[in-house]
Amino acid sequence: MRLSLSVCVWTLALGALPLAADPLPSWNAGAAKQAITGFVESVTDPASPDYVTPAARIAVFDNDGTLWAEQPLYFQLIYAMDRLQEKAAADPSILTSDVLRAAAEGDVEPMVEVGMDGLMEVLAVSHSGMTVADFQADVADWLDTARHPETGEPYTAMVYQPMLELLSYLRDEGFQTWIVSGGGIHFMRTFVDKAYGIPPEWVVGSTTPTEYDTDAQAIVKLPGIAFVDDKAGKPVGIDTHIGRRPILAAGNSDGDFEMLEYSMAGDGPGLALLVHHTDAEREWAYDRDSHIGRLDRGLDEGPDRGWLIVDMARDWGQVWPGE
Amino acid sequence: MRLSLSVCVWTLALGALPLAADPLPSWNAGAAKQAITGFVESVTDPASPDYVTPAARIAVFDNDGTLWAEQPLYFQLIYAMDRLQEKAAADPSILTSDVLRAAAEGDVEPMVEVGMDGLMEVLAVSHSGMTVADFQADVADWLDTARHPETGEPYTAMVYQPMLELLSYLRDEGFQTWIVSGGGIHFMRTFVDKAYGIPPEWVVGSTTPTEYDTDAQAIVKLPGIAFVDDKAGKPVGIDTHIGRRPILAAGNSDGDFEMLEYSMAGDGPGLALLVHHTDAEREWAYDRDSHIGRLDRGLDEGPDRGWLIVDMARDWGQVWPGE
Repeated sequence: MRLSLSVCVWTLALGALPLAADPLPSWNAGAAKQAITGFVESVTDPASPDYVTPAARIAVFDNDGTLWAEQPLYFQLIYAMDRLQEKAAADPSILTSDVLRAAAEGDVEPMVEVGMDGLMEVLAVSHSGMTVADFQADVADWLDTARHPETGEPYTAMVYQPMLELLSYLRDEGFQTWIVSGGGIHFMRTFVDKAYGIPPEWVVGSTTPTEYDTDAQAIVKLPGIAFVDDKAGKPVGIDTHIGRRPILAAGNSDGDFEMLEYSMAGDGPGLALLVHHTDAEREWAYDRDSHIGRLDRGLDEGPDRGWLIVDMARDWGQVWPGE
Repeated sequence: MRLSLSVCVWTLALGALPLAADPLPSWNAGAAKQAITGFVESVTDPASPDYVTPAARIAVFDNDGTLWAEQPLYFQLIYAMDRLQEKAAADPSILTSDVLRAAAEGDVEPMVEVGMDGLMEVLAVSHSGMTVADFQADVADWLDTARHPETGEPYTAMVYQPMLELLSYLRDEGFQTWIVSGGGIHFMRTFVDKAYGIPPEWVVGSTTPTEYDTDAQAIVKLPGIAFVDDKAGKPVGIDTHIGRRPILAAGNSDGDFEMLEYSMAGDGPGLALLVHHTDAEREWAYDRDSHIGRLDRGLDEGPDRGWLIVDMARDWGQVWPGE
């Protein structure tokens, strides 16, 4: 019996061994990769002074420009403009502002100049009056067939391989990986499970008002904007949905500044990172002067605050999953 | 090696055996208990036509009157009135309505007659202007020291043992157990982990407006009401926070009607239950005429809709954990 027992123990031990493989193969060796793995090891090692219990391992990620691309326009906006044009052709009276009239003609400048409120206005008008289920079926159809105007790829193929690896690595280490994004909550939930392995309940986003339709026994999207999950809205969204301060926060623009600041203001250890779009060859290069995903204050103040600036060109050996 | 291998298999199989112990010992044998265990077995057995994947095993529970008691008044309201009286003593100008003036003198009738909006008004005024962290520390202090006016027990001891068992049973079977309650989201999060094993992110509740305070790097509660998570608000809260239709919903009042209706409108299997307060000896007996937790339409329509009416006096062998 001694032999058989030792075989058992040995078999069980093998199953419990940590994978020796690099959890972040698309990240080049260097300070950024080291900062990430060092942080994760320190908060998951019960012997470490920085140990954090699994329940408190909350990580939050912006979506546009952090997990998938956002140029030349937020992808949800391309979807919304497409549907706005269809709706306006049938009923021009829905175009109640200059922003909407321009967008219906394919001119995005007025919308982008107004900022997130302009974007939200187009989203709200183009999406309202549908049940959430119908809306999500429509988004799924669009994502299946639409192609990016520059790369010709499906939008869901334009996710960042290094960030997919980071999400998996964190979940393997007991983290909850939440999305906290200016994008619409119902829009994102149509693809984040398949694209990132993130379930719908881990999505915090901007919302239109909704109501319960008793006849349909379904939720209906209404016109208007209920919540903009951007800038100072992000900590509010985190508090409402998660109710704990994250210990890891990742973004790429000044719209993420407050989220990173709030996340790092806890008593314990924390890691904040900003993806800096520096790679015009493989992706896009933009920061301080960009209308989409502007990163200015984060570049100035981030390093002094101890935030990790991830240089896409330097730190990522691979950008896209398909490479 | 055949022998040692079979020992291994036998050892592993033992470890994987389901517990033979009754998961719901405080539930009397009968139709209610059988309906619950039968449902759980059918959705967790991969060979069953009603099998539901773990990710979709969403269960939602009302709190007041479903997981803990709610008589003679919602416990959060007793807390809020206490604090309102303190605040009004310092600054009577906060009492801007008849409801508030009456509540500050300990008269709850006007507030209760206005309904949930009246309750929310008192909650909003008594709680506003604090950071969420300060508010929650104050609630925790109160819960530690306050005692129920009739039983003399701490409020967190007035939770229902059969529902604690149901929550644990469901989680053991791979369910997410969410609270969807008219109670305040920040209030509930102070005790639900300890009382029910429910983490803060699984709490959907009524909310005041909040904002991010950059100086304090904290969330501050503002005056007013942002969202009332009651009646038709419950499906909206479920959609916003969870993003999937639950397959199990439990409540005790007509404020839960729409939550149960919405949850049971999915394509697959579902279980809806209403706790009927029938036990004046061990708890309270009330339903159609109660100002708190009125259950009228649910008693009329629930059985025809296939909803399980749990008769507290008949179905629960034990009510309180301490018995």
